[in-house]
Amino acid sequence: MITVAVLGATGYTALEAIKILLRHPEAKIVAVTSRQEGKTPVSSVHPSLVGRLDLPLEDLSPEEVGTRAQCVFGCLPHCASAEILPRVVAAGAKVVDFSADYRLDDAATYLEWYGHEHPDAARLGQTVYGLPELFRDRIKGQSLVANPGCYSTSAILPLAPLVKSGLFQLDDIIIDSKSGVSGAGRQPKLMTHFPECNESMSAYNVGRHRHTPEIEQVIARHAGPRPNVIFTPQLAPMDRGILSTIYIRPKQAVTEGQVMQLLRDAYASERFVRVVDHLPGTKDTVDTNFCDITARVVRDRVLLISCLDNLVKGAAGAAVQNFNVLFDLPEHAGLL
Amino acid sequence: MITVAVLGATGYTALEAIKILLRHPEAKIVAVTSRQEGKTPVSSVHPSLVGRLDLPLEDLSPEEVGTRAQCVFGCLPHCASAEILPRVVAAGAKVVDFSADYRLDDAATYLEWYGHEHPDAARLGQTVYGLPELFRDRIKGQSLVANPGCYSTSAILPLAPLVKSGLFQLDDIIIDSKSGVSGAGRQPKLMTHFPECNESMSAYNVGRHRHTPEIEQVIARHAGPRPNVIFTPQLAPMDRGILSTIYIRPKQAVTEGQVMQLLRDAYASERFVRVVDHLPGTKDTVDTNFCDITARVVRDRVLLISCLDNLVKGAAGAAVQNFNVLFDLPEHAGLL
Amino acid sequence: MITVAVLGATGYTALEAIKILLRHPEAKIVAVTSRQEGKTPVSSVHPSLVGRLDLPLEDLSPEEVGTRAQCVFGCLPHCASAEILPRVVAAGAKVVDFSADYRLDDAATYLEWYGHEHPDAARLGQTVYGLPELFRDRIKGQSLVANPGCYSTSAILPLAPLVKSGLFQLDDIIIDSKSGVSGAGRQPKLMTHFPECNESMSAYNVGRHRHTPEIEQVIARHAGPRPNVIFTPQLAPMDRGILSTIYIRPKQAVTEGQVMQLLRDAYASERFVRVVDHLPGTKDTVDTNFCDITARVVRDRVLLISCLDNLVKGAAGAAVQNFNVLFDLPEHAGLL
Amino acid sequence: MITVAVLGATGYTALEAIKILLRHPEAKIVAVTSRQEGKTPVSSVHPSLVGRLDLPLEDLSPEEVGTRAQCVFGCLPHCASAEILPRVVAAGAKVVDFSADYRLDDAATYLEWYGHEHPDAARLGQTVYGLPELFRDRIKGQSLVANPGCYSTSAILPLAPLVKSGLFQLDDIIIDSKSGVSGAGRQPKLMTHFPECNESMSAYNVGRHRHTPEIEQVIARHAGPRPNVIFTPQLAPMDRGILSTIYIRPKQAVTEGQVMQLLRDAYASERFVRVVDHLPGTKDTVDTNFCDITARVVRDRVLLISCLDNLVKGAAGAAVQNFNVLFDLPEHAGLL
Repeated sequence: MITVAVLGATGYTALEAIKILLRHPEAKIVAVTSRQEGKTPVSSVHPSLVGRLDLPLEDLSPEEVGTRAQCVFGCLPHCASAEILPRVVAAGAKVVDFSADYRLDDAATYLEWYGHEHPDAARLGQTVYGLPELFRDRIKGQSLVANPGCYSTSAILPLAPLVKSGLFQLDDIIIDSKSGVSGAGRQPKLMTHFPECNESMSAYNVGRHRHTPEIEQVIARHAGPRPNVIFTPQLAPMDRGILSTIYIRPKQAVTEGQVMQLLRDAYASERFVRVVDHLPGTKDTVDTNFCDITARVVRDRVLLISCLDNLVKGAAGAAVQNFNVLFDLPEHAGLL
Repeated sequence: MITVAVLGATGYTALEAIKILLRHPEAKIVAVTSRQEGKTPVSSVHPSLVGRLDLPLEDLSPEEVGTRAQCVFGCLPHCASAEILPRVVAAGAKVVDFSADYRLDDAATYLEWYGHEHPDAARLGQTVYGLPELFRDRIKGQSLVANPGCYSTSAILPLAPLVKSGLFQLDDIIIDSKSGVSGAGRQPKLMTHFPECNESMSAYNVGRHRHTPEIEQVIARHAGPRPNVIFTPQLAPMDRGILSTIYIRPKQAVTEGQVMQLLRDAYASERFVRVVDHLPGTKDTVDTNFCDITARVVRDRVLLISCLDNLVKGAAGAAVQNFNVLFDLPEHAGLL
Repeated sequence: MITVAVLGATGYTALEAIKILLRHPEAKIVAVTSRQEGKTPVSSVHPSLVGRLDLPLEDLSPEEVGTRAQCVFGCLPHCASAEILPRVVAAGAKVVDFSADYRLDDAATYLEWYGHEHPDAARLGQTVYGLPELFRDRIKGQSLVANPGCYSTSAILPLAPLVKSGLFQLDDIIIDSKSGVSGAGRQPKLMTHFPECNESMSAYNVGRHRHTPEIEQVIARHAGPRPNVIFTPQLAPMDRGILSTIYIRPKQAVTEGQVMQLLRDAYASERFVRVVDHLPGTKDTVDTNFCDITARVVRDRVLLISCLDNLVKGAAGAAVQNFNVLFDLPEHAGLL
Repeated sequence: MITVAVLGATGYTALEAIKILLRHPEAKIVAVTSRQEGKTPVSSVHPSLVGRLDLPLEDLSPEEVGTRAQCVFGCLPHCASAEILPRVVAAGAKVVDFSADYRLDDAATYLEWYGHEHPDAARLGQTVYGLPELFRDRIKGQSLVANPGCYSTSAILPLAPLVKSGLFQLDDIIIDSKSGVSGAGRQPKLMTHFPECNESMSAYNVGRHRHTPEIEQVIARHAGPRPNVIFTPQLAPMDRGILSTIYIRPKQAVTEGQVMQLLRDAYASERFVRVVDHLPGTKDTVDTNFCDITARVVRDRVLLISCLDNLVKGAAGAAVQNFNVLFDLPEHAGLL
């Protein structure tokens, strides 16, 4: 059994990671940490864990965590991650970082989109982006993996093969995404107060959501050329799930069959990407690590439609997938 | 036109009152107040009001409010109400108080259930309970009306005629209520954070919800004998609506027809109480000032099932109904 | 009072029309029809109408309806509308047709998108499109008005002023819309079965939704040039509301201020179009006849974001607005 | 590996059984049947199964199913079950019957509540009720197990220890239950059409829900005396989950501590019953096989509050638990 710890265990992605890890045949949770809660059972914060995980929340130093566990799932806010996780790595553990701190290529972009200097800029662009479908070989052997953003995965997986094919325009890509509310985290605020967001749809952070440069840079890392995307996040009245509707323009006319074939070829051997003929709904993927993708040609555009569970394939499931790659386990262990 | 003001205009019951008053043929809103927001348009807090109400939120003294408006809708927290509203009344306005401060009979019960001394105890038990269906004649001519609690109305309307009939046991009444989340107010907290309460049902404040003594005392005021109730509030994943399922035991066997007749006789001339044969759903009453009631006999018990919109018949609609009574307007003005 | 009838009164848009008309100071409902229900009170189908409308559902001939009422709201399926409504008009009533039958310019487009010959093709292109904000002057004096589609209104209102300005490319418009489930009607089917669509988002009818040609033709009627749109409808887990996110490319760089000014100029005197600075949510417009619109410039594109209640401004509210225009009443009568 | 089949695989409980079985270390699904679908992949009906289960839906005879699989999960309607499942048993398979056909003690009660003669009355009262927490020893060695009703489990688990204690009145028990919509099955109908039941709470089948006699008879089998219950089912706007609020009267005053101790003693060694101090919400148990229970004393009554996932502990999870008992596997296999 591989010992694992969850840093910042009070949030929703941490809870999801714990649930998956409890079911994982090769992982044993040895620590769950929080700075705010005092030493209390983790199940007092997450009552669904009563009788399933009896560990207390602890306020451990990064060194203690990195010594106690072989793999650490970092569920800390951005910036805090880059301050704490290097110390966990230095203590000897492998780390999967749920935050955005190591996803981007460079400190300037980080400063532009996150509004402060990166505390550990040297690792930027050097850290592997933990999307095994694109970067599996580079994940192996790493000690730190940047787990992808939820919207990012829903956009990168369908777009990457098309960009790589060279058949599409790179400067005319629109990503219109709709997310469940759990993506906004567990901290109560007016926007996610039930009577405000229930029975409503609204856009937010239009033109300035931080997954924008992540999507562009990561596709470029994989495919070579860098696309230019317009990304619109929207809040949907549901717990989980992201539906991304992506509009891209081919350089020359393509058929639906050709686009579907590009997708099928790219993901033929991928267990967690399902290229489907029907129009998928987010519910098809909720509580799973799957990302469902289809394509349609409408007039002069190709539409890519993808969906996934933002807490699983968009966060904790992807993290466990990375954990499996890091420790040479079957990539689907704990995830089916 | 009668000039009206809404005190504490940032909450949901205040918003609902504003919406109803905007449609009211005889009311003109002249002030909306808040202590926290600074002088900003009320529509900056409630964007649904853009282009409908252009007043700013103001931090007015009770005297200013009571001078500017003929009728004041007080949407303040309990305790604050009893400190501020007497000054509004003294300034010459009539007041409908949405809080619980003047609903109970005595200061001892208030202290027991609300946990602090009542700031204006002399008016307790002297203030009319603003349920026109039971106390219409006593509302007329008053300067201060205690607007009923949402759960309370859903329980009192079906129970009162039965208790008054003398045919039922008074010590064996169970009220099992389910409420939408808007009943918890507009202040974000974990319990009402979307990913926590969406797709979930749970009980809260079991055995100690403050509407318990209100229900008992008000039924006693109307019917004579005081019933003894067990009241269980539960949170349902919806914006609005209360469904109350009430279990009461007849002294001797009764038929469904007899119980329905008691209800129909009591409310034959009431516009806003609908005694229906079918099992009503909260959605039948949402956005209306109706309370729907039916009865069933199951084994040795009578079941009363009632529903209403907690923000309308359970709060702002009832308040406007009281306003209409206070100012000798048709009782349904603005409410149909 | 103007006598009105609702044809096909069992659906959701009909129910909404009834609710608005009950509140309308100049309308009196004199008939509600249905072919399937037998002579039963309309409130047995719509329990929210108990005590508010006591009429029975009747299976009346078009001639009877057209004689009994001065204005008829036709809530029939497409094709049935074009068979029945001309007979209602011939009987002397004015008609607002909720169906799509008279919205398009020509029989060929109707055949292409609706899959059958139009039963009354001569009126196609001759019937006014009932969007008063664009065609008010042409509505006056008509006997038949084609009430707009719900998605169409959410797209046409923000797009029309931009297309008319000549500053935007017409062949590069993407409309990504999200609708509540009531838009799918009251007939139970798997797609709208609660456990299927709740907590899920999905696209449907991609590239072939019938509002596509409607949007294009109507904008052309108003603005001159005909745009070419890609329209993607999506189902959101909520009762009501449409959020449309529209991507359009300016011929030359524009500022947000310029776009907002175009919108404000177009709708400065319109009561039911609110051009707002904030990002509106569908909930801001639910149960109202408002359409909220804002604009953002993101990179080389302009985003228009609009929302409305599909059953009100997207159907019954717009119909009553047309009724008001047809009968020279204040256009907001019954709608505020 | 034990070969299993799912009979009637198009419904929600069948889908849930399939998902659990796919994760079960000792089960291999070898057949999924349906009479209506023709030979099509099961994933064409349940798109969440794409890439997880490639079997076709087949229309197999009971004998074929009973030969092909060692254990058959019968997800057929009542009455059909009692006609088909005996033939499956005769063919050699063990059967877990999700329907109500073998839950009751006698044919007369079945006729009274289900409205037709039982097709296989001899087995009534002879078939074990598959609630392992109460009847584990009697399940072992059986070839047919009656899987409990969802409401029934939520009521029986908290009530049984109290009834058995002899400390409570048996004729004064009220069970007020709230269920998610998936409990109504996958067949679209008006009651479960999204715009009808979303944002609404309503009671149904008051006084005549078929789980009433099941609860009474099964508690009597376990505890000796037969209680007399009033059971009110209510529909809540959520996918899954049952919250049961149960009111029972002690013969003499009891403390909360005493009642909690009764529950803790009864379930100390049960993995799937969690006796908790806090008020549990259905969400704590969704997607798990847990039933959470707590108790409160309010005035002269004891309240029991329980919750579970109607599709898991209320159906498919319980069925797999029974499967584990039948085949001498660890009872939690596949369920944690």
